[in-house]
Amino acid sequence: MIDLQPVKGTRDFFPDEMRLRNWLFEVWRNVSEQAGFEEYDTCVLEHEELYVRKTGDEISKQLYSFEDKGGRRLSLRPEMTPSLARLVLQQEKSLSFPIKWFSMPQCFRYERMTKGRRREHFQWNADIIGQHEVVAEAEILMLLISACESMGLSTNDFRVFINDRRILNAILSQINVPQVLHSEVMVIMDKRDKIPPEALSKMLEEMRMTTKQVGQLNEYLSKSDLEELRENLKNTEGIEELQHLMKLMETAGYKNYLQFDISIVRGLSYYTGAVFEVNSPEKQHRAICGGGRYDSLLSTYGGETVPAVGFGFGDVVVLDVLKELKRFPELPRKLDYTIIPFANEQIGTALKIAAELRLQGSTVDCNFSMKKMKKMMQQAHESGAAKAILLFPDELSDDKVVIRDMQLHEQKPVRITDLFSSAE
Amino acid sequence: MIDLQPVKGTRDFFPDEMRLRNWLFEVWRNVSEQAGFEEYDTCVLEHEELYVRKTGDEISKQLYSFEDKGGRRLSLRPEMTPSLARLVLQQEKSLSFPIKWFSMPQCFRYERMTKGRRREHFQWNADIIGQHEVVAEAEILMLLISACESMGLSTNDFRVFINDRRILNAILSQINVPQVLHSEVMVIMDKRDKIPPEALSKMLEEMRMTTKQVGQLNEYLSKSDLEELRENLKNTEGIEELQHLMKLMETAGYKNYLQFDISIVRGLSYYTGAVFEVNSPEKQHRAICGGGRYDSLLSTYGGETVPAVGFGFGDVVVLDVLKELKRFPELPRKLDYTIIPFANEQIGTALKIAAELRLQGSTVDCNFSMKKMKKMMQQAHESGAAKAILLFPDELSDDKVVIRDMQLHEQKPVRITDLFSSAE
Repeated sequence: MIDLQPVKGTRDFFPDEMRLRNWLFEVWRNVSEQAGFEEYDTCVLEHEELYVRKTGDEISKQLYSFEDKGGRRLSLRPEMTPSLARLVLQQEKSLSFPIKWFSMPQCFRYERMTKGRRREHFQWNADIIGQHEVVAEAEILMLLISACESMGLSTNDFRVFINDRRILNAILSQINVPQVLHSEVMVIMDKRDKIPPEALSKMLEEMRMTTKQVGQLNEYLSKSDLEELRENLKNTEGIEELQHLMKLMETAGYKNYLQFDISIVRGLSYYTGAVFEVNSPEKQHRAICGGGRYDSLLSTYGGETVPAVGFGFGDVVVLDVLKELKRFPELPRKLDYTIIPFANEQIGTALKIAAELRLQGSTVDCNFSMKKMKKMMQQAHESGAAKAILLFPDELSDDKVVIRDMQLHEQKPVRITDLFSSAE
Repeated sequence: MIDLQPVKGTRDFFPDEMRLRNWLFEVWRNVSEQAGFEEYDTCVLEHEELYVRKTGDEISKQLYSFEDKGGRRLSLRPEMTPSLARLVLQQEKSLSFPIKWFSMPQCFRYERMTKGRRREHFQWNADIIGQHEVVAEAEILMLLISACESMGLSTNDFRVFINDRRILNAILSQINVPQVLHSEVMVIMDKRDKIPPEALSKMLEEMRMTTKQVGQLNEYLSKSDLEELRENLKNTEGIEELQHLMKLMETAGYKNYLQFDISIVRGLSYYTGAVFEVNSPEKQHRAICGGGRYDSLLSTYGGETVPAVGFGFGDVVVLDVLKELKRFPELPRKLDYTIIPFANEQIGTALKIAAELRLQGSTVDCNFSMKKMKKMMQQAHESGAAKAILLFPDELSDDKVVIRDMQLHEQKPVRITDLFSSAE
């Protein structure tokens, strides 16, 4: 027997699981389209060079990479943003900016397998490219908030924790960490919740930060008030932009969803401005969603500087959260009709009735098992059929069928032609 | 600059192309669900062993395969049926047969790049597992016919060409080709349309068929009438099953779509009964769709024999056909509203109005460019907006906005609160 399990770290989607995935995708697609975002996609296979970065992003070390038969170095995409950047650079001349695009790609990372971690997930991505004002952040945040609300989550259940990389840059500059090291230092700072403080300090010191600098950094990172920070920093650009954004969100009616959190860094080196995560108010989960502004990513690929804001919102964590909160949607299989013939000669007629009803938009299955009535009724019930159409020979010879309401347990004969007109 | 093109043989989907793909997926999903099929999916990454077969299927030679960091031999799936077989074997005990399942996976083949060929495509798969009667073939054929009809194709545009592997087996047995060679001979016969007759004869002779046998085979393959074939063959099981199926399809109202065609073989070695292809009546395209019965696939993986019928229906050929027939759907971008503020102080208000309208189900974009009126009207038109909401300062101070109908070029002031109630 072959190995019946999916590849380690990947998932199968049986129909029950697929209905859940489709439900989630529909939420993502609906809120995206309502907010004027357009869907795009790229191939899960990309050139490996798209993910090779100078800074030590974890993502570059976890690539599924290989050489194809033509000697090309290819990777399964670990995230969507580099592919999006590639598309934008490819069509930069003809696109009319700002563009608002979304996608729902499957992404792959070869990670060590710990609880809740997988090697693939689907990740809703939404991005606004070509808008340097904070209204882009506002639109992006509104979109992900509306997604959470569409899933049945309220302000009691989640919060957008937000920071700005420029605030972190200002802190690092103020304690004399050279600018060229900022990105790498931030990749380390992002691990704060995952490793012990001593290990973190050691990693920072390996980045040529002194013990004193590490202490100063921790001092700054203990501040939770934007105004207090503003008084202590020389460069306040990041703080002002963040305050502007929060004011805008307040006017738009989203004040209660946003919370400044200086510990939000994000692990990707390409962020340049706002960075944010969605989590429960007590931050007891892994981030449901994360994103930020990345104005210089396109220029690192050889293009001009193009302002960009976006997020990634995976399918795994949010479904765990919904399950924990008992907000999991109930999505049983459903059918309008099950058609049940009782003899082989009726099969063609059953198919014909099914075809007509489907043409009218009904969802119709047939049960050709020719089993006992009781068994077939049980199967009709299990398949979620609202009604069963029974092809009893007596009625059929009269061009009639018997319709049974599966909820009310009532049945009555109906002329076949009336079946079609009544379903209209 | 990095390489901006997608990996050779793969496609990018910009929003225009994505709308088309989504349209096609929706047709596939709708007709599948209406016919009582349930959606499933597996990961694009599978264990390579799933595709290694004894017979010389071309598909096994065109795998994108590699070794992961844990030393596993993995492949990007070239087709969905082996994954489906894996799922069925995995849950065989708990599934209630027959099951009717569909999926829309992206599949990969490392092919030489000729015109119209790509290295990936999306392929709608629908299968009925656990039904050995020909009603399974009938349901499968009805499903793919309804998909073609949903796309705007009629009996003038396409035909299901059908054959039965057992007819081909009967012919090969009758001319004394040993049964163990049948599968491999059929893989060669499937190339009939692609290579010259002499080359085909040579390949058959390399399979230890004599020149006489090749001649006899060609003689049989020139017959287009089922009754004539029946008179000339000892084993008529395949012919009778096919006639039974055609009778059933006639009763169900699909007579005109089906045509017996002895040249239909299909290139996959696992087919055991009916085999079919969809093409234009003159067969001028590559097959739009192909499939058949494969009762022994699951047993080759180590399970019991489980009857199965299904098809694969790719996205590339059918879109080419629709384009050629000028039946390509028009799918421009569409919005219900574009909101246009004229000053920075109005941005929060614009976002608030947008949020309210979206909550009511409207599709709403905003134009924050602060450009000249004419330019913004042009952009509203290009984005497919039905209406523009103009935030003129005078009206706004009165809690009103101006709504402009983009088709009628008429505009009028409306109270903001009325905007929400009228959209309900």
